[in-house]
Amino acid sequence: MPNRPTSDLLAALEARLGPRGFTRDADAMAPWLKDWRGRVEGAAAALLSPADTDEVEAIVRLAGAAGVAIVPQGGNTSMVAGATPDADGASLLLSTRRMRTIRSVSSQDNVAVAEAGVILSDLHEAANGIGRRFPLSLAAKGSATIGGLISTNAGGTQVLRFGTMRALVLGIEAVLPNGARFDGLSALRKDNRGYDLRQLLCGAEGTLGIVTAASLRLVPAAAARAVAWVGIERADDALGLLRRLEDAMGEAIESFEIIPAEGLALVLRHIAHTRAPLTDPHRWHVLIEATARAGAPSPTDALEQALARAIEEGHAADAIVAASESQAEAFWRIRESLSEAERIDGFAAKHDVSVSVSVMPWLLEDGAAEVEARFPGVRVLGFGHLGDGNVHFNVRAPIGMDSKAWLADQGDDISAYVHDLVRAKDGSISAEHGIGQLKRAEFARTAGATRLHALQAIKQALDPQGLFNPGKLLP
Amino acid sequence: MPNRPTSDLLAALEARLGPRGFTRDADAMAPWLKDWRGRVEGAAAALLSPADTDEVEAIVRLAGAAGVAIVPQGGNTSMVAGATPDADGASLLLSTRRMRTIRSVSSQDNVAVAEAGVILSDLHEAANGIGRRFPLSLAAKGSATIGGLISTNAGGTQVLRFGTMRALVLGIEAVLPNGARFDGLSALRKDNRGYDLRQLLCGAEGTLGIVTAASLRLVPAAAARAVAWVGIERADDALGLLRRLEDAMGEAIESFEIIPAEGLALVLRHIAHTRAPLTDPHRWHVLIEATARAGAPSPTDALEQALARAIEEGHAADAIVAASESQAEAFWRIRESLSEAERIDGFAAKHDVSVSVSVMPWLLEDGAAEVEARFPGVRVLGFGHLGDGNVHFNVRAPIGMDSKAWLADQGDDISAYVHDLVRAKDGSISAEHGIGQLKRAEFARTAGATRLHALQAIKQALDPQGLFNPGKLLP
Repeated sequence: MPNRPTSDLLAALEARLGPRGFTRDADAMAPWLKDWRGRVEGAAAALLSPADTDEVEAIVRLAGAAGVAIVPQGGNTSMVAGATPDADGASLLLSTRRMRTIRSVSSQDNVAVAEAGVILSDLHEAANGIGRRFPLSLAAKGSATIGGLISTNAGGTQVLRFGTMRALVLGIEAVLPNGARFDGLSALRKDNRGYDLRQLLCGAEGTLGIVTAASLRLVPAAAARAVAWVGIERADDALGLLRRLEDAMGEAIESFEIIPAEGLALVLRHIAHTRAPLTDPHRWHVLIEATARAGAPSPTDALEQALARAIEEGHAADAIVAASESQAEAFWRIRESLSEAERIDGFAAKHDVSVSVSVMPWLLEDGAAEVEARFPGVRVLGFGHLGDGNVHFNVRAPIGMDSKAWLADQGDDISAYVHDLVRAKDGSISAEHGIGQLKRAEFARTAGATRLHALQAIKQALDPQGLFNPGKLLP
Repeated sequence: MPNRPTSDLLAALEARLGPRGFTRDADAMAPWLKDWRGRVEGAAAALLSPADTDEVEAIVRLAGAAGVAIVPQGGNTSMVAGATPDADGASLLLSTRRMRTIRSVSSQDNVAVAEAGVILSDLHEAANGIGRRFPLSLAAKGSATIGGLISTNAGGTQVLRFGTMRALVLGIEAVLPNGARFDGLSALRKDNRGYDLRQLLCGAEGTLGIVTAASLRLVPAAAARAVAWVGIERADDALGLLRRLEDAMGEAIESFEIIPAEGLALVLRHIAHTRAPLTDPHRWHVLIEATARAGAPSPTDALEQALARAIEEGHAADAIVAASESQAEAFWRIRESLSEAERIDGFAAKHDVSVSVSVMPWLLEDGAAEVEARFPGVRVLGFGHLGDGNVHFNVRAPIGMDSKAWLADQGDDISAYVHDLVRAKDGSISAEHGIGQLKRAEFARTAGATRLHALQAIKQALDPQGLFNPGKLLP
């Protein structure tokens, strides 16, 4: 059990960090004590905002000597309250927001070195500035930070081609619980010197180390993109379509997102200035983005031809390739507005799950039907990254019911049922959001003894006092 | 300190594994007790060859209860004696050679599930059989096994495009030191349930778990390839050429190998039926392979055009694109015969090091010159995977000297010097071969306290008795 900080410790931290790096002011702290989804409110003894890695090291040493816990926080956009301290107020909240330097960007190495507090969209801009891009993006890009993206092994819409954050991290600098700096920033494409600590820190949710900077992989800028909206009748067709497109266009296919008819209807109902891309209704829709690098032929012709063949072969019912960048943006807007439209429509039991790609059609159709049969009246809305086997499987209240009361009453049972369904297919109860606080109990229930034991042994080995982000991930 | 097995334990193992799975016969064991490079000879109390994961589990439980060590072995092709037991003969040698089932290959999931003892070339064949390929290959593909490739995070010649083994492992089944089976075989593209045990086992050299099976990523088959041989005058030009080709051809560039004039000369001297691809001599040579999937235009025209432009722009002196598959094979044969030619020529102090890609030209030219100045008469031969920042940096004896005696006398000093040179540039002393036994002392000397402490803590947490592959990796 971590200690509450003494006034001596707080004074030492204040002296080390100065007025910009230390505050206990309630108003200044308030926005960072509540999680992004507004479901958890925590408290902290102080908000620390170190300016650099030396200051992070100093904080960890002082807190470690006093047995006081530290909760690291980046953009505070966790979907699972992974950066919100416990309500007891005994922890120190460590924000990386002042560590916003992009130390270097290199088109020779195809690497950017960014501090933990660098905001994703700033990194995108820096990469674009040298004719490269950082190929990971998500809705929260204007506030999500590099440190948070690494600690949660973030996904997004380009995983199909480029993988999750862990595939893009070439080096990590971090401060470990014992106060030592792990200097693994060198961007080595190959390095077989034992257990890969970089990979261990990726997705560890700040429980094993505080990431202070990272070397990140850049790829050539995309010079052109083609965006298509496709109507299909069975989820199974979507998978056939994806493999068909990959055969025809290879790695040019970057995004492949599935949206059910109900999802499109919700967006059209609740989000201004949206319209259905196709005239006829379809059971499912797929949003596809293909890109081409500078000098390569535009991907539009290839995508149009491949889709025409897919329609002939029965993998798709209808399709339209955006004729302009504004139409492409309109297609994407539908996908990106789905969560908001759903929120406006009412509360839902939300699940971020993954299965093998070939099991996705089953989950979207048969799995959804099982849930709807077990909880009569509920409506499953499954959408997301079909090519990654990752679906946002949201269960909405029966029509006419107060969705908030329904969720409070039924939410846990429904979630347990959905997670069991996914686990029975060897899937994951957290595809991209992590465990944090909100999924901790379900993780403990479903993880199995072997995995839990191994994770706890590693945590105990690297953080024997349990001071790094307590109350997250592990039971 | 592990115990020596009692006759009771050996009898129990023999009863459990049967005659095909258990032997103490000296002749049967001999080939597996010597490392591939013939530098280390070990001993074992018995050779165990389990037929399946249940038997591996039984072995680990029996040995664990008795405090007896296990050395896992795949194809026994380690370059660092990573699968050779200690000479004291107290360990059990566990061979995966009977676990050779490819459990499934799926073109829907783009996944193969292979047991640990599956030989790489067999996996290649199975993938080809469904119009896919497994994009990792290396010289030992006829004997290297999946379990060994994972445990050493193997590299090879396609890392530039597809990454090392860890980028291709989607799931792992393993038996942990406590005898529990880690059932992480499900091929999830996204799975954020805490620390990634799959990634932790990749490259752990069998010290944290015995990999019994893996789910592996497949990619679309390549329908055509273009192979070019390029002459250049400065290592720096090679990097410029690589970036130029990537701009022009993107991910079609799969291999980019650099070979110095001396390397080509060695091959021409010692390997029958080889000839120089270009008429004029050049200081450096680059071997390039580009591929195209079925239905895409042949990569030959694009590569020819890109090389013509590179010559115009001064990034290359001369180039030839293979006009036939047999010419392509002849180009590759030069690259693949380099180690053999070098071996015929005499002993050398060999180093498998990596640096940031942009530092490669420095290492190949200035770094090599520093070594030659420090050890007068020696000749550095640096060749390998320039695009990955990984070079085989071999130091040959002065002309006229007995290379074996010279290596025994000077080898350690030279290796320490080379490793320090690489570490000063934040590079790795083991890019793809791992640490095993042969690099253990140098790893301990150069790793730094933070890394060593973290690795030892993890090892202690998961294998408190120190029974899995003792004497490897960690000091």
